[in-house]
Amino acid sequence: MDFFFNAPDDVVDDGLSGLAHIAPVRISERGSGMRLIVDREFDRRRVAVVSGGGAGHEPSHAGLVGRGMLAAAIAGDLFTSPSVEAVLAAIREVTGPAGCVLVIKNYTGDRLNFGLAAERAAREGYSVRTVIVADDVSLPEDVGARGLAGTVLVHKIAGYHAAASADLDTVAERAQETIDGLVSIGLSLSSAVLPGGKREPRSPELGLGIHNEPGVSEVAPRDAAQAVELALEPLLKAADRRHGDAEWVVLLNNLGGCSTQEMGVLTDEVLRRLPRGRARAAVVPGALMTSMNMHGFSITLLPCDDEVQAALASPVSAIGWPGLASVAEPETFTPALSEDKTPGDGPRDAGRADRLRVAAEALTAAREDLDDLDAAAGDGDTGTAFNRGATAILGALDDDRLSTGEDARLADEIGDLLARDMGGSSGVLLSILFTATAAALRENKPIGEAIVAGIRRMQDYGGAQTGDRTMLDALVPAAEALADGGSPADAARAAREGADATADMGRARAGRSAYVRDEALAGIKDPGAEAVARVFEALAG
Amino acid sequence: MDFFFNAPDDVVDDGLSGLAHIAPVRISERGSGMRLIVDREFDRRRVAVVSGGGAGHEPSHAGLVGRGMLAAAIAGDLFTSPSVEAVLAAIREVTGPAGCVLVIKNYTGDRLNFGLAAERAAREGYSVRTVIVADDVSLPEDVGARGLAGTVLVHKIAGYHAAASADLDTVAERAQETIDGLVSIGLSLSSAVLPGGKREPRSPELGLGIHNEPGVSEVAPRDAAQAVELALEPLLKAADRRHGDAEWVVLLNNLGGCSTQEMGVLTDEVLRRLPRGRARAAVVPGALMTSMNMHGFSITLLPCDDEVQAALASPVSAIGWPGLASVAEPETFTPALSEDKTPGDGPRDAGRADRLRVAAEALTAAREDLDDLDAAAGDGDTGTAFNRGATAILGALDDDRLSTGEDARLADEIGDLLARDMGGSSGVLLSILFTATAAALRENKPIGEAIVAGIRRMQDYGGAQTGDRTMLDALVPAAEALADGGSPADAARAAREGADATADMGRARAGRSAYVRDEALAGIKDPGAEAVARVFEALAG
Repeated sequence: MDFFFNAPDDVVDDGLSGLAHIAPVRISERGSGMRLIVDREFDRRRVAVVSGGGAGHEPSHAGLVGRGMLAAAIAGDLFTSPSVEAVLAAIREVTGPAGCVLVIKNYTGDRLNFGLAAERAAREGYSVRTVIVADDVSLPEDVGARGLAGTVLVHKIAGYHAAASADLDTVAERAQETIDGLVSIGLSLSSAVLPGGKREPRSPELGLGIHNEPGVSEVAPRDAAQAVELALEPLLKAADRRHGDAEWVVLLNNLGGCSTQEMGVLTDEVLRRLPRGRARAAVVPGALMTSMNMHGFSITLLPCDDEVQAALASPVSAIGWPGLASVAEPETFTPALSEDKTPGDGPRDAGRADRLRVAAEALTAAREDLDDLDAAAGDGDTGTAFNRGATAILGALDDDRLSTGEDARLADEIGDLLARDMGGSSGVLLSILFTATAAALRENKPIGEAIVAGIRRMQDYGGAQTGDRTMLDALVPAAEALADGGSPADAARAAREGADATADMGRARAGRSAYVRDEALAGIKDPGAEAVARVFEALAG
Repeated sequence: MDFFFNAPDDVVDDGLSGLAHIAPVRISERGSGMRLIVDREFDRRRVAVVSGGGAGHEPSHAGLVGRGMLAAAIAGDLFTSPSVEAVLAAIREVTGPAGCVLVIKNYTGDRLNFGLAAERAAREGYSVRTVIVADDVSLPEDVGARGLAGTVLVHKIAGYHAAASADLDTVAERAQETIDGLVSIGLSLSSAVLPGGKREPRSPELGLGIHNEPGVSEVAPRDAAQAVELALEPLLKAADRRHGDAEWVVLLNNLGGCSTQEMGVLTDEVLRRLPRGRARAAVVPGALMTSMNMHGFSITLLPCDDEVQAALASPVSAIGWPGLASVAEPETFTPALSEDKTPGDGPRDAGRADRLRVAAEALTAAREDLDDLDAAAGDGDTGTAFNRGATAILGALDDDRLSTGEDARLADEIGDLLARDMGGSSGVLLSILFTATAAALRENKPIGEAIVAGIRRMQDYGGAQTGDRTMLDALVPAAEALADGGSPADAARAAREGADATADMGRARAGRSAYVRDEALAGIKDPGAEAVARVFEALAG
């Protein structure tokens, strides 16, 4: 299975059925042999803007049906124009006394089928105007230009005027003015794959239609920047000829296969490369007129005055229209960094400094043991990580940069040190422990309770529980011993018992041991818990 | 070049720069080492909803920044959590007296870095609440669920309440309630490709995260229907356990590589398979939380009451939010078909019936000649096509189904016959000619002028001019001769001269000959023009 389709022949109908569940539309019965999608709330006193063509270009055109855009769309098979009868039935379904504007993409099949439908509709007494979109600038002047993504802007602008009760002549004129201003070009890295088909081995091409026909020239862009350059060169030449120095609305269209990340990069390249100040607004970049999953994009420019901007910015009930955005140079700012607090600007306590040094040295000494314990479950670097933290603390003590005389301040300073110099998950976890403990100390909690509070925050973010074979299994009993009024020696005993017990915990549920088979851990203590036990033993010693 | 990227390391910054051109945001300077995206118009009297994580999930989270959604987003490298300092800087940038809700996806890196940032922000005096999204239902109960696309609904709902001036407790509660209700699951046909990397050869998988980690199980869906079934089974089980019989909002998320056509089919499958009446609303399907270009989707369900629907339906200025749609059974209708007009219910004229028969027989007789002429430029079937049309007319004459006594009616009837029975481009083109000629005749134009008017419509839709080596080169002079008061013999002479002249037209600009080299056409008449000449000769004879 290469694609999320059912039977290849069902792709179009399935997709329209999906749309009909969520869009403000009515849809012709599946057995009718036609695919008409009609605005459920269309008011026939307004001019009906109707469009369509082969399927495979979704959301065009069915997804663009709704208030303020298309009154009806007609879909054919994939890349195949709908029948004259289908177009005619759509005209009948929505056209009232105000008449109808048929927006036709410049492909022979569409021109003929929509054209004959228009003639027949006229015979039936409907007032029908037709306009033909031919926005592709990639073909030589004397070959009829194809209709590309610019078509969607015709729908939006004509639909806006129709919704505003403009008469048939006005809606048709606005549509034609839009068409006269449109220039588009496409570039793709690969062809489209039809359901059940294979991707043709084709080189990147410039000047594409939307039906998998070969592009006008093969290209070999080095990167996104060059791809956009290649597309903009002929596009800007055509725009210059036609637009003078008008401001533009820009439509960057995903031909189907670009990721959102690629569309972001392409948006940047397009908007940075357009002549300064000329891009006034942009349709939110996305898939507007696709060629199935073709891995490519098209760029459309249209002169944009206040009226065009108002028309494109107006809300619609069609679910396929992504909205209009203003274009501006990015506004940047300098992030507010953490102040370089003078470290250790609190009081000193030589006794506590000594105990801290002993604890840190115990960790440094335990490095190899802890790495060995970790080798059973992880990548054997727990000792190395704790040694990094301990070394940072020893360095700060040597430089007299720790406020050893004030618990809360000291805990904060250690927390910041560990986050910066110990690194890794355990560095951040211990930093959370010390920072949250400091916060509790500032609220005047006694040390044991403060550590318990710190542990709780560490658990909130780390997600582990006691019994999960982590440092918590030593830390929690030690903190509880202190909170219950126990001595440092009581805490050390509790930590040691907790650490030793991890050797019998087969099941690791958090931390890296979570991914290791139980048997591999039997009889081996958790290195984090062992580290904690050694610290408390050193502090008690 | 496999993707529209520049240097692999620039993907994230380039994409954010693209966003910053069109979204209502400010962005941290590119050299700052951080990636903060901040609502340009954020009012610090409101609670700031802040989120972020590794990049590669666009539009999450940067594209969701804007009024009514996120006040700020922080992006890391691709699939890598941002630093504590970056999260902290974002909190500082937007958090005022109303405080801040940090929305964290349940991945270790995000939990720790956002968690420590929250603790430090609290130390700096900011009121910060954290909530952790864990909507993935694919992992066993005792393993922490991952945060998936449901996260976006938390942003939307929390952002809605924040914009409505709710206080910090309320916004945090609404966020947590949303989280408690979310269930999501992902299914993919392929892994994600990181810039500069290769696609891993992996089988389709169910139960995916968004960082290319292997899915919980390999699957082999036959088609879109089965893929959706596979995903819905565990999802609905989890939803049943948690939601009772609540109505839902449905989020169908493109993990990055699905075409719009696939999303349409998947939408249909999901909405048709949900228990009847339970799906109340749907986020417009699209790419909300991607995993680069991963060819897969995720489905999220959230209980939906009036308040949730109002929150999700409210407008935002963030450009990445696609909007909410109501869900309903598709409303269908029967297209209004063309009435089966009783053919030939007008008067008869035996003389004109005879001439028409002679003309049709001339075409039938010319079949082989015309096919031969066409073989030089096309697929050698012009004679066959004209013969089909002529045979249809002869059959209608035999059955007395043509109103030979009334020009306009007769032209209409022939136009309808040719569209139905001759088929192909030329059948439609001739049908346009006859139908438009009939319209002109009904306006009381003389026959020559009426044909000229019909030709003009045929040209409008067909796009050819005289001199383009098409049937026009015989048709236009013949019609002009008639319009100038000439006899049928004059018209026949003009048609013959025009048809003969096509042998010297090297350059074909319309019709199928447009794609043939000039030399191949030298000395060969256009078969369409020849057919027209033979008809006029027969009519004159």
